[in-house]
Amino acid sequence: MKKIGVILSGCGFLDGAEIQEAVLTLLAIERAGAEAVCMAPDIAQHHVVNHLTGEIAEGETRNVLVESARIARGAVGDLRSASIEDLDALVLPGGYGVAKNLSDFAFRGADCRVNPDVEAAVRACFEGGKPLGFICIAPAIAARVLGQRAGEITIGNDPETARTLEAMGARHIDCPVWNTVVSSQGSVISTPAWMLGPSIGEVARGIDRLIAEITALL
Amino acid sequence: MKKIGVILSGCGFLDGAEIQEAVLTLLAIERAGAEAVCMAPDIAQHHVVNHLTGEIAEGETRNVLVESARIARGAVGDLRSASIEDLDALVLPGGYGVAKNLSDFAFRGADCRVNPDVEAAVRACFEGGKPLGFICIAPAIAARVLGQRAGEITIGNDPETARTLEAMGARHIDCPVWNTVVSSQGSVISTPAWMLGPSIGEVARGIDRLIAEITALL
Repeated sequence: MKKIGVILSGCGFLDGAEIQEAVLTLLAIERAGAEAVCMAPDIAQHHVVNHLTGEIAEGETRNVLVESARIARGAVGDLRSASIEDLDALVLPGGYGVAKNLSDFAFRGADCRVNPDVEAAVRACFEGGKPLGFICIAPAIAARVLGQRAGEITIGNDPETARTLEAMGARHIDCPVWNTVVSSQGSVISTPAWMLGPSIGEVARGIDRLIAEITALL
Repeated sequence: MKKIGVILSGCGFLDGAEIQEAVLTLLAIERAGAEAVCMAPDIAQHHVVNHLTGEIAEGETRNVLVESARIARGAVGDLRSASIEDLDALVLPGGYGVAKNLSDFAFRGADCRVNPDVEAAVRACFEGGKPLGFICIAPAIAARVLGQRAGEITIGNDPETARTLEAMGARHIDCPVWNTVVSSQGSVISTPAWMLGPSIGEVARGIDRLIAEITALL
């Protein structure tokens, strides 16, 4: 069975992984006949956000790996010790956790730094010719780590975010939520998901398509 | 559009709502052409569990409504002020949150007490002839609140839990994960989900079926 790595960034779209996108990714992977291998960095979250009010929960701290385990029902490994070479593909669901925990894209934009273990995993898969899926805001990681080599990517249709991705070397293509953009070099695939919304069902269509395109390449 | 209430119990299967079940419920509701209305009680969680180790996080506290908002992307209301009369049906996803936060079933078994707002919502929907869906361990709430009126329900095939539900007046029927049990009086529907597993795809089959049966009654 083909193994698809899934890098999680916490649990909750304002300070971690977008939960719905992560769950829909796991569902799509199983339905495509592959096995999901969840991973997350063992680091503190940038902060904790109250998802009812949208306000920062001052003084509260949570760990990205520990919170990611909520989505994966405990079946999540430390990204640092993960066997990336055993994976056939790699997918990053979205959520602000990608831009606050896996990188500091939310704060530094095109000058962002990416967590070294995330960067190493993305780079190793890309250079190994393995398909890479980036959901929602995760194409920011593709743009930062791969630069021009990322090729065509999408975060939907937000002009400012699109310009920031282009400043890092990628080429942004507007895309509806149910669709994907496949880079011209072929192995980088992205879908806007909750960057666009408007609903879990529409987001699921895009993610199902992204996983189908990845598994078709395996 | 028909409105289906979804009562959440936190965010994470060991101390709150089972995340995958909750997300799959929201997806199935949209795909069935209905609208999900997420609700949760504004109460402290019984405790916080580290989902990586399974151990209790001593000294940590979280709120059920606030954590439920992570799954619902903020779109969750306080159950106490919810307009239950506007709902056409009600669904309870599972997770230990049902047995630790919405009730104390995890600690008192057949002698459990149910949160008064949860009890009132279940009772009002049942007495209004509205369909009720109970996923995973949530049939314990049906058995406790409705007793013999719950009729036939399922939590899968665990004999000890089944006996406990029967001690509260319900009749337990063994059921595979992809299927549901519809009570003979017709409005109480249950599916085992992660009480049985073994995978998100199998759990999704049972939840899709449960939502289809509920919407067929509307």
